[in-house]
Amino acid sequence: MAKHKPISSDIAWSTTDKITVKGLDLCQDILGKVSLGDMAFLELTDRLPTPQESRAFNAIAVALVEHGLTPSAIVARMTLAGAPEAMQAAVGAGLCGLGSVFVGSMENAARLLQQALPDKNQSIDIGALAVQIVDRELAAGRNIPGIGHHIHKPIDPRTPALFAVARETGFSGQYVQLMNALAEEAGRRLGKSLPVNATGAIAAIASELEVPWDVVRGIGVMARAIGLVAHVLEEFRNPLARQAKAMIEGQATAHHLA
Amino acid sequence: MAKHKPISSDIAWSTTDKITVKGLDLCQDILGKVSLGDMAFLELTDRLPTPQESRAFNAIAVALVEHGLTPSAIVARMTLAGAPEAMQAAVGAGLCGLGSVFVGSMENAARLLQQALPDKNQSIDIGALAVQIVDRELAAGRNIPGIGHHIHKPIDPRTPALFAVARETGFSGQYVQLMNALAEEAGRRLGKSLPVNATGAIAAIASELEVPWDVVRGIGVMARAIGLVAHVLEEFRNPLARQAKAMIEGQATAHHLA
Amino acid sequence: MAKHKPISSDIAWSTTDKITVKGLDLCQDILGKVSLGDMAFLELTDRLPTPQESRAFNAIAVALVEHGLTPSAIVARMTLAGAPEAMQAAVGAGLCGLGSVFVGSMENAARLLQQALPDKNQSIDIGALAVQIVDRELAAGRNIPGIGHHIHKPIDPRTPALFAVARETGFSGQYVQLMNALAEEAGRRLGKSLPVNATGAIAAIASELEVPWDVVRGIGVMARAIGLVAHVLEEFRNPLARQAKAMIEGQATAHHLA
Amino acid sequence: MAKHKPISSDIAWSTTDKITVKGLDLCQDILGKVSLGDMAFLELTDRLPTPQESRAFNAIAVALVEHGLTPSAIVARMTLAGAPEAMQAAVGAGLCGLGSVFVGSMENAARLLQQALPDKNQSIDIGALAVQIVDRELAAGRNIPGIGHHIHKPIDPRTPALFAVARETGFSGQYVQLMNALAEEAGRRLGKSLPVNATGAIAAIASELEVPWDVVRGIGVMARAIGLVAHVLEEFRNPLARQAKAMIEGQATAHHLA
Repeated sequence: MAKHKPISSDIAWSTTDKITVKGLDLCQDILGKVSLGDMAFLELTDRLPTPQESRAFNAIAVALVEHGLTPSAIVARMTLAGAPEAMQAAVGAGLCGLGSVFVGSMENAARLLQQALPDKNQSIDIGALAVQIVDRELAAGRNIPGIGHHIHKPIDPRTPALFAVARETGFSGQYVQLMNALAEEAGRRLGKSLPVNATGAIAAIASELEVPWDVVRGIGVMARAIGLVAHVLEEFRNPLARQAKAMIEGQATAHHLA
Repeated sequence: MAKHKPISSDIAWSTTDKITVKGLDLCQDILGKVSLGDMAFLELTDRLPTPQESRAFNAIAVALVEHGLTPSAIVARMTLAGAPEAMQAAVGAGLCGLGSVFVGSMENAARLLQQALPDKNQSIDIGALAVQIVDRELAAGRNIPGIGHHIHKPIDPRTPALFAVARETGFSGQYVQLMNALAEEAGRRLGKSLPVNATGAIAAIASELEVPWDVVRGIGVMARAIGLVAHVLEEFRNPLARQAKAMIEGQATAHHLA
Repeated sequence: MAKHKPISSDIAWSTTDKITVKGLDLCQDILGKVSLGDMAFLELTDRLPTPQESRAFNAIAVALVEHGLTPSAIVARMTLAGAPEAMQAAVGAGLCGLGSVFVGSMENAARLLQQALPDKNQSIDIGALAVQIVDRELAAGRNIPGIGHHIHKPIDPRTPALFAVARETGFSGQYVQLMNALAEEAGRRLGKSLPVNATGAIAAIASELEVPWDVVRGIGVMARAIGLVAHVLEEFRNPLARQAKAMIEGQATAHHLA
Repeated sequence: MAKHKPISSDIAWSTTDKITVKGLDLCQDILGKVSLGDMAFLELTDRLPTPQESRAFNAIAVALVEHGLTPSAIVARMTLAGAPEAMQAAVGAGLCGLGSVFVGSMENAARLLQQALPDKNQSIDIGALAVQIVDRELAAGRNIPGIGHHIHKPIDPRTPALFAVARETGFSGQYVQLMNALAEEAGRRLGKSLPVNATGAIAAIASELEVPWDVVRGIGVMARAIGLVAHVLEEFRNPLARQAKAMIEGQATAHHLA
């Protein structure tokens, strides 16, 4: 067997009397002083947030916690119905669906923004950049991620709420402008109103916070874990999984016996 | 197909212009105003916390986020190594192991406390209650959950830090006293020092916060999801899963070829 | 760091030119000679089956592969809808629900049979044993597992098919008799027809095959993984997850807006 | 709420007295007559295999069942150590890692073969096709999937065993020839021996069996579920997860305290 690189992790380690997390002393510097959202920021970025960063980051994380009866909530509840002794696995199963389709559009929006504007402070004509990106994406047959919504019309009500927080905390910079410009240009080209949705707003603010685009999905995963715990707890007290299964199976069986 | 009870959920629902979560307007009442930890409290208990509750709840949730290279962190990292395209499934797989062994001792401690003291304000002789519980548990061949630690000696450094927060926020009541009394009595009976560990401290404070014992595991699940995202992100940048697998397989193979 | 017991596994190991599985040479003794069902038997019991054991084991495993739109199939399909890039996680999520409720009744039936009759060849009055077990279980407020069915009436059509295989292969012994006697006695006591269902038939035949009761759930897990792969592949080609989610969410929203 | 397409599935449905799976009567046509491997073939391809197809399909599925202490086996065992009450979730967690890295090379090899040779019976110069493919892939900076092995040298012993089964069953056609030609050409170009490995052999035989490349991963997922059940059962009886975790954590901690 070949020698291999020693195993190491810089996240956390312990001695008999001290626990170090991201370079801080868990007991002296963190417990009772750092909130859960700021701890998440520390875990993702290796440092504690400023008060402004904290407010903006908590707002986008909170926006991702709860979406009602999404597929992942239904998955968690149906899994619990079969294995009520393992609520952790019900939450785990629910997370497995947070992939390219649902959480992916947020990741794609963040990637598009960050690749178009690698340095958020560079001086650039945002309107011209938006035209160029929409040209390229539409020519390639791709959708612009982060715009439009199938339920929330004319606008997604989360977008103005999140962008207000961004303004108040000093994070309404060029990524937010570019996201808005993309929505406007895409709407103009496609002849319909396609305002920035929550996904696009979160992607823009995460980019302002300098969260790398391939870390953005992680915010969604951690936030939704909180929401899925709530669904699992409601399923214990007010179950719906069996009825939902009966409705689905009933309709499918009726189709075959018709 | 029989008629069934209509499907409903009281967690969240939407109309075109409004999203309601736990009875609050997400955009007016929550975004930018409620932190991630307080949102978790809302999801678990159906109301926002007071400032004191917020500080105590965030402290116990934060204490559960990160424990270094635990089995669930290793599981998440090894899963990512095989399927880097699905980080959500790596986190989901990691959560699946938060069952009766690791998170279970916290749940068991909370259950023991809440079943022994259904009303936290009733006047009771805590010392006598502790003697009675330790008698019963030892006679039944069970361990007292929430005491002792295999690494942190003489004490788990998280316990005094968490109990200090409890005192400062007014949550150092009879559950905290009972947890301490149980540790002292069990230590006396078993002839060794078995101070309250982080698990026991969290169980006691969660009980003070009136979180039902069967909801306590949920705090662990949501908090660890945050930590697992951090491990998955580190695995992308500084991988250890392959070396760990090679080390395990190498030792097992050597055993057979010896 | 303390010394620990060396890591070893007796399932499989490799050298440069040979792969050993359960003591057999994979390339010489298994590939092309052993079917998938017999390989599963080898994995579970450490030896290859006789032709009779093979036929009986394959029959019960096959009976567990496919049950249409069960909760686990819906879970796998909804997970795929969100993360089509990770079909393995969709199957994994689906398996998470095979717990105490659905697969558990098979495990419970096998445990009840094997604990009542530890040696399948001992001479015993099966009828009297059944009366005694039903007395005990009903007195304790428990159901008899493996009997009755909410859809398949008057009988579960899989039971006679499986019991015919058991007879033809010499595995219709005292466990099968006891399962039938339990169903008859429970039906008599409860005043309704409660014939052995597929779960009970499989538990009885697995017991005849000397599969320990705590391994029986494993047969269900491996068999259902095959069925879940089929559902995932159908979801790619003829999706239903989005419609199912819209139907569930629509009904729940209507409830709140009513 | 908009009307949606009715939910339907063509895999299985039930009436009170009959269960239909893939158009066959489960109780009349399948139980006791169809082996687990042939049931898997039916689930994947919508028809039962011929005896030759059965032998070839079972051989490739069996080759995927067991690989010793792979990452997915370690994941399943570590998950079980934390949640022994939920062995189904341990298997589910293990499956989550069967993604683009481990099972992906088999899928990639099958795709490359099937896209290069859409009709397996067309008359074509296999050697010239291999040269053309290797040119294209190396120019694009991609590896040829399904060749070479880091442990099994000079050859993967599973390849000749599987290709012998292919010859004996009439499935040693142009896909097998192309796979061999690719290995030879790649080895010649890269100046080292890169014979077809088990992954490449399975991909070629699956292609001969007309299994679409995007279904090939499904064979791996179902087969590995069987192997993971065996690892979970061994972990109950002869655990290694705790030692493995201690070894990993110990090495990582030593690195920080050095």
